[in-house]
Amino acid sequence: MPDKINRRIIFSRLMIGEPRLEDFEMIEEPLPEPGDGELLLRNLYVSIDPGSRGRLSGRDSYVPAKPLGEVMDTQSVSEVVVSRHPHYRVGEIIAGYHGWQDYAVSDGKRLFRVDPGQGPISTAIGIFGIPGLTAYVGIRKLLKIASRETVLISSAAGAVGSIAGQIAKIDGAQIVGIAGGEEKCAFSKKVYGFDHMIDYKSDGNIPLALAKACPNGIDGYFDNVGGEILNAAVANMKRFGRILICGQVAEYNLEPEQRIGLRDVSAFVGKRLDMRGFVVLDHPEYFDEARKTMATWVKTERLTCREHIVEGLENAPKAFCGLFRGENFGRGLVHVADPSNS
Amino acid sequence: MPDKINRRIIFSRLMIGEPRLEDFEMIEEPLPEPGDGELLLRNLYVSIDPGSRGRLSGRDSYVPAKPLGEVMDTQSVSEVVVSRHPHYRVGEIIAGYHGWQDYAVSDGKRLFRVDPGQGPISTAIGIFGIPGLTAYVGIRKLLKIASRETVLISSAAGAVGSIAGQIAKIDGAQIVGIAGGEEKCAFSKKVYGFDHMIDYKSDGNIPLALAKACPNGIDGYFDNVGGEILNAAVANMKRFGRILICGQVAEYNLEPEQRIGLRDVSAFVGKRLDMRGFVVLDHPEYFDEARKTMATWVKTERLTCREHIVEGLENAPKAFCGLFRGENFGRGLVHVADPSNS
Repeated sequence: MPDKINRRIIFSRLMIGEPRLEDFEMIEEPLPEPGDGELLLRNLYVSIDPGSRGRLSGRDSYVPAKPLGEVMDTQSVSEVVVSRHPHYRVGEIIAGYHGWQDYAVSDGKRLFRVDPGQGPISTAIGIFGIPGLTAYVGIRKLLKIASRETVLISSAAGAVGSIAGQIAKIDGAQIVGIAGGEEKCAFSKKVYGFDHMIDYKSDGNIPLALAKACPNGIDGYFDNVGGEILNAAVANMKRFGRILICGQVAEYNLEPEQRIGLRDVSAFVGKRLDMRGFVVLDHPEYFDEARKTMATWVKTERLTCREHIVEGLENAPKAFCGLFRGENFGRGLVHVADPSNS
Repeated sequence: MPDKINRRIIFSRLMIGEPRLEDFEMIEEPLPEPGDGELLLRNLYVSIDPGSRGRLSGRDSYVPAKPLGEVMDTQSVSEVVVSRHPHYRVGEIIAGYHGWQDYAVSDGKRLFRVDPGQGPISTAIGIFGIPGLTAYVGIRKLLKIASRETVLISSAAGAVGSIAGQIAKIDGAQIVGIAGGEEKCAFSKKVYGFDHMIDYKSDGNIPLALAKACPNGIDGYFDNVGGEILNAAVANMKRFGRILICGQVAEYNLEPEQRIGLRDVSAFVGKRLDMRGFVVLDHPEYFDEARKTMATWVKTERLTCREHIVEGLENAPKAFCGLFRGENFGRGLVHVADPSNS
């Protein structure tokens, strides 16, 4: 039986610069009561997503700006604890967007039933959730990486980047990654199969390091960070190279007038570059294919994703703040509770 | 019969910042002698192209950096004065890339026979040359402007922009232009049919002026200038908007570290923008269609292009320098000589 209290972490202060613990507040509320056609969900895992930052400055991003006082609505894996909905039974495991709280009421929309045969339930919001779908659709459907092309991936040890790299490698590309620190770089080579890794913390001159790692230039750049690394990539793109802008972690914490941006737009003419912004939710037509294909690769151990699991809902804000200092290593998740049958 | 002297304007000093007269030198050489299979051409019109600037700083652009001492090889309309080539007769009018000189020897390659029925021979390097082809292919094949879309065009009174605007208008779009000065703006509305014109010299706040002129946002931006106008356009793009980077006149004179660039790359995710660099020479498969279609429009007076003709080869450098101060108004050409049968 559920406890009588629902802990919820709300967004309590508009962010300026790097997120801080004081930008969040934990409140306690009575357990919500599901009405007819509704469900009560108990969160088991919730996600820590750098992309949330864009909504927390009071400006609209690819989703509208988030109002103060609302719960952080990241992805979640939950157990149905009460069901007044015809399609869901108590005990089922469900993925959704129920965020940083112990319990949530759902009307049954935007839910996705987790297939326990596909792996640990946390993968429903990792490889089989937004990060994995983003990597798959980005590499295969938008960048359309072909065999023997050179692909650069930033945040290569992260949730999206590590999967994107492995998919490009499966498809026959040469994969070059950028990450921060020796441990992430070594792991990415060994486990994800990156051909070259550039450590942005120790390789001082990124454009030069890229030129060495990609002597024939970059065909496709899967950009999760923006900023100086985007500029270094542009300088090393091949003619007709493609850039997919998936995230801009280096820019999220900057006010508009501080942004680094992209300096050399002339290179777009010179090299006929193409740069496209990307949100995977625009492409649901590929989700089935992506999940099925990746499930096969996971089973045959061609695809893996490291999880960075933080224990306890109360630690979600700290994990989120750490993201922007490169403290996470893998898909950022918070373990909130275990399923009742475990 | 040709004179015995060939005046040639060579590129004599690597450019830093705005082009200056001293960056060019006029030299006199004996008339070149065509060998077997060659032609002697006498230039009638030569072009003044802002895009040349990119090659004159010692850096490669979409064409390799130009070595010092070479003649400025812009587009030309010429008359065949001596032919030792089986396919060309004396007196024929030919378009090519013979640049700022009175005479040139050609091996017969990269020549294009001018159809005198299509209009004044200067149009062969205007509407029917690179500027017109760039406008046609850019609007119809790359931006793929649809009826009722809003299109923004910078350098709207210029050779490419004015044709691009008219084609988008023929295709049913709402067209908004940016140009410098009241005269260019008034002319562009009256003659080219722009629905709105923004005068960057007097409309202080371009992002605001754009927001007013495009209250529903911009679907397609045909960018000839870059810099702050590109940034203002990005701020006003609609979701899934397309940006075609055709020229970057605002950036050409700046050293790499001074460039304005594009500040808000995050907007590419937020609005799923696409930005693509474009050189029309990559798309020869559309040239026939473009020339035929535009010839019909010219005949029916749906399409026009104002020419900015400077008299005398010796004035080419001055006209080129003036381009970057917005002194030209229309397709920049130098009238070098008249055909011998005129």
